[in-house]
Amino acid sequence: MRNIQTIALALLLGSTALAPAMAAQPADQAAREKAFDASISSADQMGWLKSMSSAPNHVSSPHDKANADFILSQFKAWGWDARIETFEVLYPTPISTTVELIAPTHIVLGGQEPAIPEDATSGNTKGALPPYVAFQGDGDVTAAVVYANYGMPDDYLALARRGIDVKGKIVVTRYGGGWRGLKPKLAQDHGAIGCIIYSDPGDDGYGDTDSYPKGEARPETGVQRGSVADMPLYPGDPLTPGVGATRTAKRLARADAKTILKIPVLPMSYGDAVKILSQLAGPQAPDGWRGGLPITYHIGGTDTVKLHLAVKSEWSLKTIYDVIAMMPGKDRPDEWVIRGNHHDGWVFGAQDPLSGNVAMLSEAKALGALRAGGWQPSRTIVYASWDAEEPMLLGSTEWAETHADELQKKAVIYINTDGNGRGFLSAEGSHEYQHMVNAVAADITDPQTGVSVLQRLRAKVQADAFDGRDHNETALTAAEAGGDMPIGALGSGSDFSAMLQHLGVPALNIGYGGDAASGGSYHSIYDSYDHYTRFEDPGLAYGAVLSKTVGRMVLRIADAETPPVRFGELATTVKGYLGEVQKLVDTRRKQDDKRAALLAAGAFKLATDPLAPVAAPQAEAPTPFIELAALSNAVARLETSAKAFDAAYAAKAATLTPAARTRLNTALRDIDQLFLVPEGLPGRPWYKHLIYAPGRFTGYGAKTLPGVREAIEERRFADANRYAGLTAAAIAAYAARLDTARGIIG
Amino acid sequence: MRNIQTIALALLLGSTALAPAMAAQPADQAAREKAFDASISSADQMGWLKSMSSAPNHVSSPHDKANADFILSQFKAWGWDARIETFEVLYPTPISTTVELIAPTHIVLGGQEPAIPEDATSGNTKGALPPYVAFQGDGDVTAAVVYANYGMPDDYLALARRGIDVKGKIVVTRYGGGWRGLKPKLAQDHGAIGCIIYSDPGDDGYGDTDSYPKGEARPETGVQRGSVADMPLYPGDPLTPGVGATRTAKRLARADAKTILKIPVLPMSYGDAVKILSQLAGPQAPDGWRGGLPITYHIGGTDTVKLHLAVKSEWSLKTIYDVIAMMPGKDRPDEWVIRGNHHDGWVFGAQDPLSGNVAMLSEAKALGALRAGGWQPSRTIVYASWDAEEPMLLGSTEWAETHADELQKKAVIYINTDGNGRGFLSAEGSHEYQHMVNAVAADITDPQTGVSVLQRLRAKVQADAFDGRDHNETALTAAEAGGDMPIGALGSGSDFSAMLQHLGVPALNIGYGGDAASGGSYHSIYDSYDHYTRFEDPGLAYGAVLSKTVGRMVLRIADAETPPVRFGELATTVKGYLGEVQKLVDTRRKQDDKRAALLAAGAFKLATDPLAPVAAPQAEAPTPFIELAALSNAVARLETSAKAFDAAYAAKAATLTPAARTRLNTALRDIDQLFLVPEGLPGRPWYKHLIYAPGRFTGYGAKTLPGVREAIEERRFADANRYAGLTAAAIAAYAARLDTARGIIG
Repeated sequence: MRNIQTIALALLLGSTALAPAMAAQPADQAAREKAFDASISSADQMGWLKSMSSAPNHVSSPHDKANADFILSQFKAWGWDARIETFEVLYPTPISTTVELIAPTHIVLGGQEPAIPEDATSGNTKGALPPYVAFQGDGDVTAAVVYANYGMPDDYLALARRGIDVKGKIVVTRYGGGWRGLKPKLAQDHGAIGCIIYSDPGDDGYGDTDSYPKGEARPETGVQRGSVADMPLYPGDPLTPGVGATRTAKRLARADAKTILKIPVLPMSYGDAVKILSQLAGPQAPDGWRGGLPITYHIGGTDTVKLHLAVKSEWSLKTIYDVIAMMPGKDRPDEWVIRGNHHDGWVFGAQDPLSGNVAMLSEAKALGALRAGGWQPSRTIVYASWDAEEPMLLGSTEWAETHADELQKKAVIYINTDGNGRGFLSAEGSHEYQHMVNAVAADITDPQTGVSVLQRLRAKVQADAFDGRDHNETALTAAEAGGDMPIGALGSGSDFSAMLQHLGVPALNIGYGGDAASGGSYHSIYDSYDHYTRFEDPGLAYGAVLSKTVGRMVLRIADAETPPVRFGELATTVKGYLGEVQKLVDTRRKQDDKRAALLAAGAFKLATDPLAPVAAPQAEAPTPFIELAALSNAVARLETSAKAFDAAYAAKAATLTPAARTRLNTALRDIDQLFLVPEGLPGRPWYKHLIYAPGRFTGYGAKTLPGVREAIEERRFADANRYAGLTAAAIAAYAARLDTARGIIG
Repeated sequence: MRNIQTIALALLLGSTALAPAMAAQPADQAAREKAFDASISSADQMGWLKSMSSAPNHVSSPHDKANADFILSQFKAWGWDARIETFEVLYPTPISTTVELIAPTHIVLGGQEPAIPEDATSGNTKGALPPYVAFQGDGDVTAAVVYANYGMPDDYLALARRGIDVKGKIVVTRYGGGWRGLKPKLAQDHGAIGCIIYSDPGDDGYGDTDSYPKGEARPETGVQRGSVADMPLYPGDPLTPGVGATRTAKRLARADAKTILKIPVLPMSYGDAVKILSQLAGPQAPDGWRGGLPITYHIGGTDTVKLHLAVKSEWSLKTIYDVIAMMPGKDRPDEWVIRGNHHDGWVFGAQDPLSGNVAMLSEAKALGALRAGGWQPSRTIVYASWDAEEPMLLGSTEWAETHADELQKKAVIYINTDGNGRGFLSAEGSHEYQHMVNAVAADITDPQTGVSVLQRLRAKVQADAFDGRDHNETALTAAEAGGDMPIGALGSGSDFSAMLQHLGVPALNIGYGGDAASGGSYHSIYDSYDHYTRFEDPGLAYGAVLSKTVGRMVLRIADAETPPVRFGELATTVKGYLGEVQKLVDTRRKQDDKRAALLAAGAFKLATDPLAPVAAPQAEAPTPFIELAALSNAVARLETSAKAFDAAYAAKAATLTPAARTRLNTALRDIDQLFLVPEGLPGRPWYKHLIYAPGRFTGYGAKTLPGVREAIEERRFADANRYAGLTAAAIAAYAARLDTARGIIG
């Protein structure tokens, strides 16, 4: 459900350590991959995509169930041991959604997005969700309006400096700048009684590119649906945190489910939003709050503009349908390589999620053909087509929670995809797999340029830097050196979260994008087959590329004697994160000193325009030094142990006895679970990973070393010191396990 | 005629050297300044402003002449020896201006800006100039349209990479990003046959603040007039470069005047421009080209959109009226302190130039009152109210050229003002006066906050930095240290240019601004008394502040035994410029290497979206090392000599004999003329100053060490080496003169 535009631009953060090249793939492996590729067909994917996106397929819709059944039948036809696993989850559907301007004039807003003649399915909205966000809190409110930009924490600081309080008001925010669900959550936390989230044309409308149907950007009538459950607390069914939502599961009362908001919230098109925003009085919005509407943005807060917002939902439990297909491993059946993509959409879901799902189906078909030809994977391969990802990762989370013990015993890796598109490889995940990702990327040909997707990516970063576009400096250094490109850290926003952050299973999230200015159809009725095949991936060329990319990863991990991990990149990356945290402390201390000095000198008061005053920022207690020595020592030890292991493995892997190999694999299979802390992160016990987490105030965006970093950012200094110790212990244990594994190699 | 918004944001670039504090002002000086202040009246200024801005006052209009007569009468009434000096200049006025969309539909555009009920003079447009730019080339053309963003050199590189040629087309550019006159000049140089310059609402319209009359921003109908003479070649009358445009002057034929453009050009409102831009096809405009219109910006270039543009002007010579008033010095009558502000506007000209002119009148009245009370300045004071600044500095340039010999013998300094506004002190000029500017700023109370304007400025820079707004790092360092704030370098755009850059007279340009979001009335009919007193300086509080600021400078320089100069700041500033030039060479060399490597690797081709390709940049010969050793040695010598002089003067000035004092003043009076090079800058002999010049491709924006810096930027490497030598020689001569002056002190 993540916006491909965001992913594509965030591509490839992380470290760039160079290390000895992996051994070339064995000849039989190369032949197998060639055979695999021969079964991948863009035409197949076009057909599946057209059919699966032909009707609304949100959770609990008939077509979503039909798609699950179709996927099941395909897996079976291709020889997989497949079944549907169901869960009973809380999933609200709208009974009525009302939004209307009450003052200065009465204007009815909202309602379903209109059909566009050039888009064949856009008229098939019978049974489709209207613009709505899941897990808002039903209510009926009328109040004055405050425009709060992206609705992120800094925006509330800016409001306070302009004397604006949102208590008792309806907050209008725009999409972007942070995850959707944080906007109403923060509005609610600040006392607002309702929230609107609209799509500003400067972000994904005409300010980006031509509007649909002329181009791919969001039209005046387009609305982004989505979930506003408090995902940074926990994903999955709000009623069953930490356990699977089976029929018999013990459930919270809805009123006790902390991930459900208390205030009504609706998404909105800019065609509607401009009717509100153009009326607002009050202070002028700060410079960075200006969107693409042809108005001067004001903050409002006066009674001259009033909105009526009412939402009523149907809150019964719904059945969701995860398709789970297995291909047993012949040598190591209890080591699982898991690969997934969800199948539920918000409306037709052609890009999100079906473009990724049909790529996954191609892989399954190709693996089935290999199996039919006599090959059997060494490890067990599990393919999963998840339901209910959109409301908040329900299908994957409930499955992972239900099978937690088995997964922690058997899972080697989880590889995820979601919406795909034309462009550049984007990879995020567990950094011991960084080199494998690069090795695969070197073997995949980009269909538009004929070079490897790795080479195209290196060219992109360098051209971006030369031409002054946004780019990542670490990636640039890597690209210039011609070495491995860094992969990014995983936050949230798709089905890897429970595997990685709750269970400690290594994970990767893979996709292509960045050529087309996608994002304009995201979570709207215009995310259709027509839109997707016209703009985002004509002919599904990149659908086939995604299949070949992920298929190789699955094959190489499933068939390797030991999974193709390398820990030097992990250590270097974690060392980089530590450097960022150290710098954060330093920056914060300087900023605190400067703030105090400027406050003492009255500088903010002197600097502001007295006719449009902006008050001084609030005084803050200074950031203390944080106890980072143990963490620094642990990271240094990790680096030493990782390099030693990698060198030993490179030198002696070929000589390992089968017994030693088994002991080595056992030592490594669950090593990432050492990064988990049983009590979880501060205030959110479900998230247990001490290296990667979705940010409390970024949502989908990752926070690395989260226990420490977020505590410093949020001035919870006792937490920072405590989690620096916990993280140090986890990293030291990881290093010790690497030493043990190196001992097995001998 | 410079836009106060631009000036205010550019405030205070330069160096921050700390040096021994100047001696406190003598007691009689303080008393005199107090008496001076007592004569400054915002009410006076309100009255003068209302009357002078009551009718159109562009060059050759009756009211401009009436204003000159009024100013003359006031000077005389205040006891000055005043007269009007006339010149006969080429000044075209429009006979007809036509602009209309021909395809895809016929829409008549252009015409006079409409009256606004809330603006009392906006209906008095009889005799006013319609939207027009002076010194465009008359013509009648019909052609396809290309949108070229700000129309600066980089924009043409971006067009080329998208396969768009402007030959035979009409280029539509938007205001901003560089000086107005460069836009049609560059369009013409690239083969365009016509040019439109429009005001985008993202720059000074609703994207900035509320539109007039609700707020001060440019309304949908507002148009910015201006001059498009090729000022970077030479300012003043196009027919008399280098000599005064007296009745009998030898004149060029109009066809031979190189500062007059060859193609027709008109300015435009965004209300009109959107009718063109919204129709354009062709490639999508690059990200940075997006303005505030609610459209996707395209480049055009196809025959589907055609414009008809026709301009016919009346090209006779016109008489202009400089008011020159003198107050003879009692001790040093042949040392002149000159101070000026122009009186011609584009329409009513309340802000530009009359807000500065009425502040100057207050000073003249106050000096007259001091004189009437028995005081007489030690040096001669000359006040000048220039005509015809707007068409391109004609009044000041022709006067300076006419009196060049006398000015080079007598002028000590020229202090300029132009439009003024509410906010922060902005000062630019010759850096030996930097400390004097700071000493005055420390003595002036800001009317909104009650602290000194220097303290408020220091607070502003620090608050801007803390809050993440644009700021200058050198100014920030200075503000944090609590020392002198740097002053900026002078480029062009107001009447200091001939004095400084042609004659080598030290100059300062002083103004206030930055609180109000001014710029929205600039050069339109809405630059009115109502607009100015409502938004830009209610009650003309900052008019009085400007008078007190500049009045002190005039008094302190006119009465000092030796003008209050200090050369350490000049040396440090020039050293900073040298550092920038050295860094420029280094940056260019690296960029050249990188471009060559990426071209060789085909990286640009791999990185671009094949469906919307952007070609690779053109290959460039690498930037060589430049001979900067002699220049480095000269700058080092300047630093040594300047510090030695400042120290000697601070220690021994009080003990100087009258004869030594006279010799010292003689040695220093024309020292800045040593910065002139007789042959002028490459390709533009009128500009002779080797430290400060308006940029060939920035216009108003300064280029420092221009002979070297611009040659490197434009890949004229032989020029760069040659002007490095010339500049080194000039700086060494300056240092030698300082050594001589120090010898006089003993």
